[in-house]
Amino acid sequence: MDLPERIEAGIHLALRYATANCCPPQLAKAMRYAVFPGGARLRPRLCLAVAAACGDRDPQAAAAAAAAIELLHCASLVHDDMPCFDNADIRRGKTSVHVEFGQGIALLVGDGLIVSAFETIARETQHNPRLTAPLIATIANAVGSPNGLVAGQAWESEADINVSHYHRAKTASLFTGAVAAGALASDGNPRDWFSLADALGAAYQVADDLYDAMDETGSMGKPAGQDQRNGRPNMVQERGVQEALKHLRELVEEAAASVPECEGSDMLRAMISKEAIRLMPKKLAASAA
Amino acid sequence: MDLPERIEAGIHLALRYATANCCPPQLAKAMRYAVFPGGARLRPRLCLAVAAACGDRDPQAAAAAAAAIELLHCASLVHDDMPCFDNADIRRGKTSVHVEFGQGIALLVGDGLIVSAFETIARETQHNPRLTAPLIATIANAVGSPNGLVAGQAWESEADINVSHYHRAKTASLFTGAVAAGALASDGNPRDWFSLADALGAAYQVADDLYDAMDETGSMGKPAGQDQRNGRPNMVQERGVQEALKHLRELVEEAAASVPECEGSDMLRAMISKEAIRLMPKKLAASAA
Repeated sequence: MDLPERIEAGIHLALRYATANCCPPQLAKAMRYAVFPGGARLRPRLCLAVAAACGDRDPQAAAAAAAAIELLHCASLVHDDMPCFDNADIRRGKTSVHVEFGQGIALLVGDGLIVSAFETIARETQHNPRLTAPLIATIANAVGSPNGLVAGQAWESEADINVSHYHRAKTASLFTGAVAAGALASDGNPRDWFSLADALGAAYQVADDLYDAMDETGSMGKPAGQDQRNGRPNMVQERGVQEALKHLRELVEEAAASVPECEGSDMLRAMISKEAIRLMPKKLAASAA
Repeated sequence: MDLPERIEAGIHLALRYATANCCPPQLAKAMRYAVFPGGARLRPRLCLAVAAACGDRDPQAAAAAAAAIELLHCASLVHDDMPCFDNADIRRGKTSVHVEFGQGIALLVGDGLIVSAFETIARETQHNPRLTAPLIATIANAVGSPNGLVAGQAWESEADINVSHYHRAKTASLFTGAVAAGALASDGNPRDWFSLADALGAAYQVADDLYDAMDETGSMGKPAGQDQRNGRPNMVQERGVQEALKHLRELVEEAAASVPECEGSDMLRAMISKEAIRLMPKKLAASAA
């Protein structure tokens, strides 16, 4: 199986457990709705690519980590879209979960996906118990408080935002988690991969700012212009499109250059350059090609 | 340390990590508000009591499991109180989290506590890796979908409620999880303890129905009369106070009788009888004394 097939298989397996048998029908339907069809599956692809670059020592653990990371990403999208945050009606080109199923079910979909993510890692690493705790600790750190997605989202409720902590927690943390989990699942050393994760996380943040400012629906599928409406920091507003684009290119080069030498490093560098085009708003990608 | 001290120490440790350093201040404050001061800490006490009855083979793992279970219980209370569900203003005698901090922070407090629960188990079982996956799988099953709290709450959004699945998922599951986790952390066999967990979960459900119907604030600190307002099944409405009370007594006897013979069985039976009084609404406990 290639990476996208392995990712979808891992997510399908997790959802099969989470929506089995006596699951309330609306919850089961809404959990699937939140996860399929997916977006770019950027984070799980990164996780599996790093695992492959490290020799793919435990494919089952890597697939579980990748699935867990995507489930957690989807959970954060469902909760972030709710009226108490972005109040977004559209996600990935269809109505968001709370619009389609109501706020109560949307809340539970997010909770259920978070639990399912950790359950998936526990279930799929039983054969290799020394992986379970490091994988769960690494991924939990990337999504929880004080360093992960939960903290990132909470910064938006603060009167006085710490922009560096905000961006690191809201965007970079899950890239770092994906990279570290991929390395861990293949007996690699996560520390060797942190500068790649940092550069990619920062690149993604700039790309997201560009989408938002250029009035184009981003790879996360959220409507444009939300940063300005919600008074959030955005690099394009601060430094202009050309400066942001230049910074994005530098970050992508930095990411590719920071891939450590290993059996899969060429493949990973090629993937990063390809991602860079995919990351860019279409108008910019056309002019940059 | 006695059980309550060990429980509070475990929860304090988890919160110290979750609210460390760069945590957004409102989130940190709200996470602590949701967890301290606690209610009866019934589920973690049960977890530690079973671990003690099995010989307390790994006190650190047992304390982590107990703390995780309480964090997950608190998370479910915060989310259940939100306007899209119970819209409850009061919890444990003070304003509920969403009233005090807003719905956005309440949503994140729940998410953060869920993540912190699994992170706590991963961190505190590193010395004993063969415990990590079973503990996390057991506790995830008790709080997630399709068997746990998330599914239980989702049944309330169904037009056609399966009452047996609803009560099992919403109430019994976390008792079962607490008991099973306590046994696992002490190398016991969770299967030996399931009938105790079932009886206690059912007893707690009847007690909760009694509180609700008798217009008295329950041990969970939620306002009375919510079942009738929300059209939820309640045993007292169906079979009357005396019948419900009789059933509660039978279930407590059944729970005490189902404690397997082990080094701590007498202590555990005594604890269950004491809990039975604590479980009852005060008006009934006075007449039953």
